Amino acid sequence: MIKRFPATVPTRSRTVATETLVFTVGVAKDKVPSVYEQTKQALARIDGSLVEAGSEVGKILTAIVYLADIGQKEEMNRAWDEWVDRESPPMRVCVSGGLEGKDLVEIVVTAAK
Amino acid sequence: MIKRFPATVPTRSRTVATETLVFTVGVAKDKVPSVYEQTKQALARIDGSLVEAGSEVGKILTAIVYLADIGQKEEMNRAWDEWVDRESPPMRVCVSGGLEGKDLVEIVVTAAK
Amino acid sequence: MIKRFPATVPTRSRTVATETLVFTVGVAKDKVPSVYEQTKQALARIDGSLVEAGSEVGKILTAIVYLADIGQKEEMNRAWDEWVDRESPPMRVCVSGGLEGKDLVEIVVTAAK
Repeated sequence: MIKRFPATVPTRSRTVATETLVFTVGVAKDKVPSVYEQTKQALARIDGSLVEAGSEVGKILTAIVYLADIGQKEEMNRAWDEWVDRESPPMRVCVSGGLEGKDLVEIVVTAAK
Repeated sequence: MIKRFPATVPTRSRTVATETLVFTVGVAKDKVPSVYEQTKQALARIDGSLVEAGSEVGKILTAIVYLADIGQKEEMNRAWDEWVDRESPPMRVCVSGGLEGKDLVEIVVTAAK
Repeated sequence: MIKRFPATVPTRSRTVATETLVFTVGVAKDKVPSVYEQTKQALARIDGSLVEAGSEVGKILTAIVYLADIGQKEEMNRAWDEWVDRESPPMRVCVSGGLEGKDLVEIVVTAAK
């Protein structure tokens, strides 16, 4: 049984869950010009999505962090380090690439249920 | 039991399936200079690969779309929106990065079986 | 039961394993200015991480290769082709994006146990 949770457009889901795994993606709601603030918002959204799908931060397996500018990685790290469950840190990758509009960071997470 | 379906080179598979998950990647066969056309081709290839591995479009969990140029996202979206199963939309991420040769788009999909 | 294997910083894991899947990431330890050498090192690290988590190269399902410069793909391919298990090739994607510091390549792998 696959569960899907709507995104802001009907042709995508924000979160998809199988019986054992949850996949979710987060960006900042307010496109403020701070990577730290956008990362905090994206991570907060991921928190909410995981709970909604029956998972939680401590069950995250992997995170892929896409940054618009790799030079801003320390700002992203600051928000990450404040947020992460240090008892259960995910495998994480951080790369930079082109993102949409004023998005400075986009984070994709795979979690266990 | 892992099943592997060959790519055009022997050191990679186009599709790999476990008993519960299918992973596949698609690019356009003809490197036409249109993101819309290349996306259509890549998605058609993914369709075929999923069926071959015992899955289908409506069971896609996640899609990562790599674009050579993020400025062409609307063109990719147009092909996506025509193709996607609106009853079962995947979680989707779209970022731009360098792709090989004349590839304008590359799409990786994880699906349930 | 999720098992986590430490990275060099406490807020991330190098490898995370569920009962059926292993996720791991590798970069080169020595940031030599050769994509071929960095890829060899990253793949060797992945080998070790997989064994540590109860998997192995022949059970890799997917690999995402991030290159700092897509123009160096042939150098990466050379190391890949020497290393891969030709009986069990993974689905592979290769894109370029900004990486940290002197990293020229970063490879993320999902494997079966």
